[in-house]
Amino acid sequence: MTMENILWEQVQLVRQKSPLVHNITNYVVMNNTANALLAAGASPIMAHAKPEITEMIGIAHSVVINIGTLDEYWSESMIMAAETAHSVKKPWILDPVGAGATSFRNEVLNQLLPYNPTVIRGNASEIMALAKANTTATKGVDSTAESNEAIDAARYLVNQYNTIVCISGETDIILDTHQEISIKNGHPLMTKVTGLGCSATALVGAFIGVSEDKTIAVAAAMALMGIAGELAAEESKGPGSLQVNLIDKLYTMTEQEFINRLKIERK
Amino acid sequence: MTMENILWEQVQLVRQKSPLVHNITNYVVMNNTANALLAAGASPIMAHAKPEITEMIGIAHSVVINIGTLDEYWSESMIMAAETAHSVKKPWILDPVGAGATSFRNEVLNQLLPYNPTVIRGNASEIMALAKANTTATKGVDSTAESNEAIDAARYLVNQYNTIVCISGETDIILDTHQEISIKNGHPLMTKVTGLGCSATALVGAFIGVSEDKTIAVAAAMALMGIAGELAAEESKGPGSLQVNLIDKLYTMTEQEFINRLKIERK
Amino acid sequence: MTMENILWEQVQLVRQKSPLVHNITNYVVMNNTANALLAAGASPIMAHAKPEITEMIGIAHSVVINIGTLDEYWSESMIMAAETAHSVKKPWILDPVGAGATSFRNEVLNQLLPYNPTVIRGNASEIMALAKANTTATKGVDSTAESNEAIDAARYLVNQYNTIVCISGETDIILDTHQEISIKNGHPLMTKVTGLGCSATALVGAFIGVSEDKTIAVAAAMALMGIAGELAAEESKGPGSLQVNLIDKLYTMTEQEFINRLKIERK
Repeated sequence: MTMENILWEQVQLVRQKSPLVHNITNYVVMNNTANALLAAGASPIMAHAKPEITEMIGIAHSVVINIGTLDEYWSESMIMAAETAHSVKKPWILDPVGAGATSFRNEVLNQLLPYNPTVIRGNASEIMALAKANTTATKGVDSTAESNEAIDAARYLVNQYNTIVCISGETDIILDTHQEISIKNGHPLMTKVTGLGCSATALVGAFIGVSEDKTIAVAAAMALMGIAGELAAEESKGPGSLQVNLIDKLYTMTEQEFINRLKIERK
Repeated sequence: MTMENILWEQVQLVRQKSPLVHNITNYVVMNNTANALLAAGASPIMAHAKPEITEMIGIAHSVVINIGTLDEYWSESMIMAAETAHSVKKPWILDPVGAGATSFRNEVLNQLLPYNPTVIRGNASEIMALAKANTTATKGVDSTAESNEAIDAARYLVNQYNTIVCISGETDIILDTHQEISIKNGHPLMTKVTGLGCSATALVGAFIGVSEDKTIAVAAAMALMGIAGELAAEESKGPGSLQVNLIDKLYTMTEQEFINRLKIERK
Repeated sequence: MTMENILWEQVQLVRQKSPLVHNITNYVVMNNTANALLAAGASPIMAHAKPEITEMIGIAHSVVINIGTLDEYWSESMIMAAETAHSVKKPWILDPVGAGATSFRNEVLNQLLPYNPTVIRGNASEIMALAKANTTATKGVDSTAESNEAIDAARYLVNQYNTIVCISGETDIILDTHQEISIKNGHPLMTKVTGLGCSATALVGAFIGVSEDKTIAVAAAMALMGIAGELAAEESKGPGSLQVNLIDKLYTMTEQEFINRLKIERK
């Protein structure tokens, strides 16, 4: 099978299995994230209450932890969720939104990393801040560095925390201990819609919830997001309609659209 | 007057009276819920702070309590709101999102029920979990059981808590002590948009805020939601555009569209 | 230069400088507010955690404080943010959502005002409630809600707190110590979309973050919002599509559209 077919198989798997994805994510993107998950065929739960974290993870296929609008309570929930996911061996993904912007974020991230996220997805600035490989100041939650400059940082995280790292940007780069996959899908207008990175993270959460090959699952989710974004952007008049059309495209994506558009390299 | 005309009168009543609806609801749906209420002619307030709950209920026509993203603070607010609404005789509706998924949710729900919600609206799984009439595991916040299997559970709740129960699904079933109303509007694509059940709950909240006949008010709100969803789905390319079009249809709904589409049975 | 050109220059300045706007805002509007800021060319951060407030303000160009869904924790964050912004001289804007609705809101607002917001933006009722909550001698401030009736209240706030006040409504009125600017853009359908006032506040936050003339910055932001709303409404089928189209128009707005549509008066 070609890489194109292998990735499309993952998209179909999510549609068939409809994994239950437990999200502890930020306020800004909750609605869009839930809709992206539903459109891709998954079932979202949003729940952060400490008294129910353990039970929720028990019924979920995977966990998404996104620190975008963290505070003391939410960071305690996130740490509890990471610890639980790690101990019961549920796949989980970390989205280190705004890593490096404040010492509070860095401290919380340092408490999360030892629970070995299955995947970390962030932009180049965030990945570099997370690895402390670079002192570039994070400008809020947007990227100020190119993906390819963050590869060393990513490789450090892969080795240090036994994780898969996805650096998202114009090119998405996915690294594990023995390979590097690049995906060049997506559209510049996507950077003008809030939280599409967070939606990508949630989709990865769904894919690792049902797939055996976690790295391939990450690649498939990022490809789905990028291709849906491309197709949506071509029909959109601006970022408002892009947000709407992208959800539609996640839902209606065909094998032909996916295979024809996919730009993937593996080394 | 026909049932069709009686229900349409309720839709007009909300547009004319513009009830102030106080929502203590979940983060995922706040924006959509507020927009659904505005589109239907109501005025939404979202407020959960314990120091202002009592005053807010004082100025509101009705209260919506939705436990979707509850935590310790929010559940205390909800209990305070239910107690206040009950004691000052303001109509209130309970949306038991994810009932049965965790013991925390069940405990909070058990503290809310004694304040006799005017209406409870949930899917079949949630209604059954709430009544403990059935041990079917809730799969997250989506329904795993057909509406008609939950009728016994609903009837138990009606009698036990002196409430009206609306089981939503492909067919919406509304029960009070002496009647059962079925509405067969809506569209399957609606299940792919997050929180449309929550929007339905909020609309019911608006309708019971201005109507004398609470059961008819519930039926009218559910019919409005279902018909708006049908009309919207026919013009939508996927769940993203459905979410947008549904708000438009709530706002532009005409008497003719409503009367012609309504599929209602009463026994 | 004409007023039209002076205001358009501000719109371009935001697009060029891309100010980082730190928002402590309400749950209902976070997504839309972030998207409005991105569409206008700014960079949004949403962050409310007390341990990171000071650092976030350090990297931001301006701060937006919106009390829509405040509670005890959030109001403490807001007060801390106002105090910090005031002491490090970062421009900040206050949106007193629901001022006067509860004594809790009034108390929090009374704690925020002494930190001299650069701008206060609210509707007529909110501006009147803010002035009334704050003074024992309420000299003829009554409870009706037309913009022009709130001018006395606004003038009191301008003088008392050394701030600029924007009363938004069918006509937006902007007052400082020596001038009054009126903008008559916008569309009635905008009142049927939740949180467009909050988006206007956030845009003002972006504009005061990069402009020397704060009053002109407020006028430019309100004009941008109103004109985008007009253009969007003409292409919309209801409030759902208006919300989407408005974001598109903020992004695609041309000099010609802006100059031709602007209805401004200064005295």
